[in-house]
Amino acid sequence: MAERIYISDAGDHVGQEVSVQGWLYNKRSAGKLWFLLVRDGTGIIQSVVFKGNVNEALFQECEGITQESSVVVTGTVSEDKRSVGGFELQVSDLQVQQLAEEYPITPKEHGTTFLMDHRHLWLRSVKQNAILRIRHEIIRACRDFFDGRGFTLIDAPVFTPNACEGTTTLFETEYFGSKAYLTQSGQLYMESGAMAFGKVYCFGPTFRAEKSKTRRHLTEFWMIEPEVAYMDLDGDMDLAEDFVSHVVQTVLKNKQAELKAIERDTTALERVVKPFPRISYDEAVAILKKNNVEFEDGNDFGGTDETVISEAFDRPVMVHRYPAQIKAFYMKQDPEDESKALCVDVLAPEGYGEIIGGGQREDDLAVLQRKIKEHELPEEAFQWYLDLRRYGTVPHAGFGMGIERVVSWICGLSHLREAIPFPRLMHRLSP
Amino acid sequence: MAERIYISDAGDHVGQEVSVQGWLYNKRSAGKLWFLLVRDGTGIIQSVVFKGNVNEALFQECEGITQESSVVVTGTVSEDKRSVGGFELQVSDLQVQQLAEEYPITPKEHGTTFLMDHRHLWLRSVKQNAILRIRHEIIRACRDFFDGRGFTLIDAPVFTPNACEGTTTLFETEYFGSKAYLTQSGQLYMESGAMAFGKVYCFGPTFRAEKSKTRRHLTEFWMIEPEVAYMDLDGDMDLAEDFVSHVVQTVLKNKQAELKAIERDTTALERVVKPFPRISYDEAVAILKKNNVEFEDGNDFGGTDETVISEAFDRPVMVHRYPAQIKAFYMKQDPEDESKALCVDVLAPEGYGEIIGGGQREDDLAVLQRKIKEHELPEEAFQWYLDLRRYGTVPHAGFGMGIERVVSWICGLSHLREAIPFPRLMHRLSP
Repeated sequence: MAERIYISDAGDHVGQEVSVQGWLYNKRSAGKLWFLLVRDGTGIIQSVVFKGNVNEALFQECEGITQESSVVVTGTVSEDKRSVGGFELQVSDLQVQQLAEEYPITPKEHGTTFLMDHRHLWLRSVKQNAILRIRHEIIRACRDFFDGRGFTLIDAPVFTPNACEGTTTLFETEYFGSKAYLTQSGQLYMESGAMAFGKVYCFGPTFRAEKSKTRRHLTEFWMIEPEVAYMDLDGDMDLAEDFVSHVVQTVLKNKQAELKAIERDTTALERVVKPFPRISYDEAVAILKKNNVEFEDGNDFGGTDETVISEAFDRPVMVHRYPAQIKAFYMKQDPEDESKALCVDVLAPEGYGEIIGGGQREDDLAVLQRKIKEHELPEEAFQWYLDLRRYGTVPHAGFGMGIERVVSWICGLSHLREAIPFPRLMHRLSP
Repeated sequence: MAERIYISDAGDHVGQEVSVQGWLYNKRSAGKLWFLLVRDGTGIIQSVVFKGNVNEALFQECEGITQESSVVVTGTVSEDKRSVGGFELQVSDLQVQQLAEEYPITPKEHGTTFLMDHRHLWLRSVKQNAILRIRHEIIRACRDFFDGRGFTLIDAPVFTPNACEGTTTLFETEYFGSKAYLTQSGQLYMESGAMAFGKVYCFGPTFRAEKSKTRRHLTEFWMIEPEVAYMDLDGDMDLAEDFVSHVVQTVLKNKQAELKAIERDTTALERVVKPFPRISYDEAVAILKKNNVEFEDGNDFGGTDETVISEAFDRPVMVHRYPAQIKAFYMKQDPEDESKALCVDVLAPEGYGEIIGGGQREDDLAVLQRKIKEHELPEEAFQWYLDLRRYGTVPHAGFGMGIERVVSWICGLSHLREAIPFPRLMHRLSP
């Protein structure tokens, strides 16, 4: 029996008879030939059935094989530069595992709702396959980056006991007679981890019950959050630019075929190398004014503002020192201007907006207690967090990066829903 | 200024003056010497303050430095085999960042509830630090194993629309006017992924609202679930034994210091190499009878049963072909004995019980529809899943492995709660 191979390994088997186990992606005939495009999840290979090479019944059978039928194809691998993937199979045998019913997703155009309803099948298409392979590479590059620098993975919990910053965007669940809330960020836990392990990160799903239908929001999304003890805002920005450029350059290096499959122009991505420009919030506001954007000083930036700011640069831009009053209570104030927070947002180019938010954390117990009061938060719920300032507090900083936003940017997608295998949106909970 | 190093890198700086940023773990004095044990999360280094080397005020200050105070220590690295970590620091300067308040966790014994209430600080202890570093290594080994074999990571959703198999152990949340349930397994989604990518895995938190207070249950735990198209039960067992032995051997190779820190006798772990014994459910029952265990044939095994079965072997044992009636509807029946399912559980040695559950999935549309009816499940909710049998169905198999059970086993822990950074149990939702 011929050796079973994956299509991605075809190049190692030129001249050998092998067997490929997959599904019919497409087919066409030309006289005494059938060209069957067979996919197995790792690639697509053109399988050539020549009437003279196979028995009559098998040749006839090709006529009836429907799209997405499961097939085991045996044949000899040959190189063919014109073929998809660069190799062909000269078929000697073919077995149909199952003739598929009429497949709902055809080469013609389908509406988004229809495709989302069929997400479990839509994943089989070349484009969705390539996007999710790139997603995998991005995730791997993220983990390798921190693992390679001696960070310890400290998974943050999903269930949290308190609705610390208001319940409007929190998912809530009954928890054995009390209430639990689904995490929006692992940061506070990572601060605890940084004091124990020096350098930590978490990487898991986070949740936001936002009544938003924009292309930039999912209710369930993955976030990676590093946190480092004895690191200040400058160190945080060094880390962020090293990290983002590592991820982008790794994808460019390892996923050329996939980027080509989704027709991504990678010119702008190739420029994503450090140093990234670092500008203050005030400088960013000046860019808006110069471009005649209506903007009230002191506010947070909206999507359009971010696009205008990022268009002034040829790579991601780091905007630091936003007004303290629009930032979370745990942000450290700038000692040189207490109205500003020692925070940073990284804005992606090409209109993709914020991909990273982070900064230096308030490490003074008294200041943090005062800010918890000012923000009218329940101090009791933060006692464990305040402990980190009681027992050997140190300067520390970190950030969070939303994976789907980065996938969306690197793949050039117009909507986050294609950046995750099974997207969850306000009106989308299935399949 | 001296170069800032992490303690784990001390060996690269022998003879050099460096600076270490960390916390005071412990100290003792002897005449003109203070021995300060300083930890920075990557290790502990004995820092020797000799009265003749530093100014008088600094030497005096050592007296007052409390446990877990944050300190920056400057000094020259020297090799000292008797010292923890193998290196010492001959201190020339020392700065106290913050004098810690009286630290609640002291070298004396503490009760479990107290330690769990202080989990955010308990992480700093040598043992908890080592366990979570081993956890990180296990997770990395899991991902590397599948990445290295061409699997694609397909993250399964946490929010699922249906309470397919009863709601008693499901966490439920309001989802914009309807109900969503937190995932208990990504398997059905992985089956969809396997048909699209050939070989896939997911790795994320899963949830079980079990009213159980045993040491083997968490409400929130991490699970890795591979799924492969065109793979049968034998292939599944091959994959499981390759996987488990890879993970164990990788930890043994890379985490000797941590295993030593938790005083783990690794003799039994060293035997975890393939092939693992493969026995049928019936053979496992025979082992129970032989050991005079009271057991009703046809039932599932309990914890004690699993221990007795696993004690008959010197490494993990794979028990296959359980009675179909005690297994889930999606398990494929054994064509040679329809009362049995083509499933497998992997039982860890040393009484740690089931770490893997998996098997071959039912791939026939009509049989699956019949079983959904027999199990009185709502067929409508499974239409998308049934689509996988309509459009090119193929034999396929996979399994799920709970990470905390593996961490617990490899570290020799008596309770799962120490196998995850912030455990969530029936009566434990904080910090």
